[in-house]
Amino acid sequence: MTTTITSFLEGYHELNAAVIDELSEQPSPLEFMRYVARNRPFVVRRVATDWQAYRRWDAAYLRQMMADEQVKVAVTPLGNADAVVEQSDGHLLFVEPYETYHLFNNFLNEIQRPIASREPLPVKYAQTQNDNLREEYARLLPDVPSDIPFARIALDQSADAVNLWLGDNRSVTSLHKDNYENIYVQIRGQKHFVLLAPADMPCVNEQMLRQGRYVPATSANGLEDVTNAFAIEISDSDERIPVATWDPDLPDERTTAYTHLAKPLRVTLNEGDMLYLPAMWYHKVSQTVGAEGFACAVNYWYDMDFSGYFWSSNALVRDMVEAERLTPKYPKLEMQIEQ
Amino acid sequence: MTTTITSFLEGYHELNAAVIDELSEQPSPLEFMRYVARNRPFVVRRVATDWQAYRRWDAAYLRQMMADEQVKVAVTPLGNADAVVEQSDGHLLFVEPYETYHLFNNFLNEIQRPIASREPLPVKYAQTQNDNLREEYARLLPDVPSDIPFARIALDQSADAVNLWLGDNRSVTSLHKDNYENIYVQIRGQKHFVLLAPADMPCVNEQMLRQGRYVPATSANGLEDVTNAFAIEISDSDERIPVATWDPDLPDERTTAYTHLAKPLRVTLNEGDMLYLPAMWYHKVSQTVGAEGFACAVNYWYDMDFSGYFWSSNALVRDMVEAERLTPKYPKLEMQIEQ
Ligand SMILES: O=C(O)CCC(=O)C(=O)O
Ligand SMILES: O=C(O)CCC(=O)C(=O)O
Repeated sequence: MTTTITSFLEGYHELNAAVIDELSEQPSPLEFMRYVARNRPFVVRRVATDWQAYRRWDAAYLRQMMADEQVKVAVTPLGNADAVVEQSDGHLLFVEPYETYHLFNNFLNEIQRPIASREPLPVKYAQTQNDNLREEYARLLPDVPSDIPFARIALDQSADAVNLWLGDNRSVTSLHKDNYENIYVQIRGQKHFVLLAPADMPCVNEQMLRQGRYVPATSANGLEDVTNAFAIEISDSDERIPVATWDPDLPDERTTAYTHLAKPLRVTLNEGDMLYLPAMWYHKVSQTVGAEGFACAVNYWYDMDFSGYFWSSNALVRDMVEAERLTPKYPKLEMQIEQ
Repeated sequence: MTTTITSFLEGYHELNAAVIDELSEQPSPLEFMRYVARNRPFVVRRVATDWQAYRRWDAAYLRQMMADEQVKVAVTPLGNADAVVEQSDGHLLFVEPYETYHLFNNFLNEIQRPIASREPLPVKYAQTQNDNLREEYARLLPDVPSDIPFARIALDQSADAVNLWLGDNRSVTSLHKDNYENIYVQIRGQKHFVLLAPADMPCVNEQMLRQGRYVPATSANGLEDVTNAFAIEISDSDERIPVATWDPDLPDERTTAYTHLAKPLRVTLNEGDMLYLPAMWYHKVSQTVGAEGFACAVNYWYDMDFSGYFWSSNALVRDMVEAERLTPKYPKLEMQIEQ
């Protein structure tokens, strides 16, 4: 099986250049559909510079619009929301962020404070991924297109979710994949994507992990601690979820027999740039704040197509890797010679 | 591995209905591209009824246009061009037809003769698949569109080949696949397609076969025999080619462990109907002559896209099936106890 998977990986990379196409303008729906058919990403530079969001979203405007709205904030000690955390006993856990509500004003203040002065404080990131731009940030929604026309027409559907991402340099979204076609647009600051094609699945060391959640250590008086002292609360449930445990920025740790065959693509989005991130592509995402000390992006998720060959063959690769993991490399031959 | 392949096949068929979409009109390039992306076939009924070919191609017109042109004809004893033939020793061979040239007029005469009166004679089929409509049948080319607009625009390329198929009820094209996107249009008579998705590859019992060719038995005087006495000339070369040996019309013969999971789709094209046959779909094709005793079709082959996930994962399934074939089911444990 090992050679079969190896040939697959090598074959895929031979036929697909390890570069991201850069388009000079937005694709037509048909051009977009060709990328969807090939499940390959592209970038369009400065395409959103005519969006109201691009023109208007400075700190003063955001404060004015969002004023005293309560927004949901993910809180972590190190910026690692939805991340693999190694426990002292060596076990890996998939740890979700602590979630709390802040007045938008206070949240933005915290984001904008220079990192040095905030170092011991926890990292906060607005990243709820639950269609938040049409919910809690609805006041900002008129500043972005309600849909990406080429995607809506090509995929014959409206966006399933429109999300706002607002944070500082310390927030990192660890390597994962989504079963969505994703149009990602940077508004302020930069986003740094590391991308891996779905074919690289055997390289990312997916493991079934138990889940946990960061909880702030409570101080003696029972109030939430304002320092970044966190405990991890392990879920009661025995349920485990598949998590990519390889980190392309620590390429020699948590490897599999295939990791060296992975071909990570790296791309940075600047203000106004758009990325098409095809369904099931692994992505690790970090960011650099803009002139006013925050990074902000908007993305559109469209349901992927589960029919056809792609989804099924993707599941096949996952099953193969899983089956191989369960097969002992050297069969134990135990012989008892009775006389 | 067996269960992995089984889950893949079952998963594919759960997510893809075993029916062929029927469109009420030609798709737009974008609509077509969605089918290409999903690698799923469709039929458009009576879409070619405004083609000159549909209006003009009766026997008299074809004779007048092609007059005394020489055309290449595939000749077989039973109508089985490019077919698997079992030899007396049980070995399977992939046998190509005998190829010869006829005056078009004589060829059409033979096709049109009532089958009964011709029974002992060999079966003839114009099926050269080498862009013949732009070559030997070039005089008929103005009667068909030089390209299929929705396909040309969607795939951003012209047809790689345009082929004419002309034969009678006895010709059958055995189950095979092509690495082309295929637009197939019936002009006279009917075509009966049995289709199998590329996911059904494990079901069709692909084997590496030696090649042969039908050659007419020569009579005592050295002239080609006019009866259907044929010998098979086995190729000198040791080269073997992969051939689907399962026949969906003899479902219980030459099966694999997966054949029962195949979901053959059947569709008949009538005069003026169009089929989109996606790349790598297996197809077995038979025909019924029209009012004037011949069946005639035209098809357009477009190069498929080898990038993206489809081709690579298709090769993976082939490699898995191959690897499984090479793995003995019950490991032979030979022990020698020496005393
Ligand atoms: O921007 C981020 O931090 C992560 C984005 C992401 O994971 C997504 O768009 O699916
Ligand atoms: O029409 C036939 O006999 C076979 C057609 C075929 O194999 C094709 O179009 O690829």
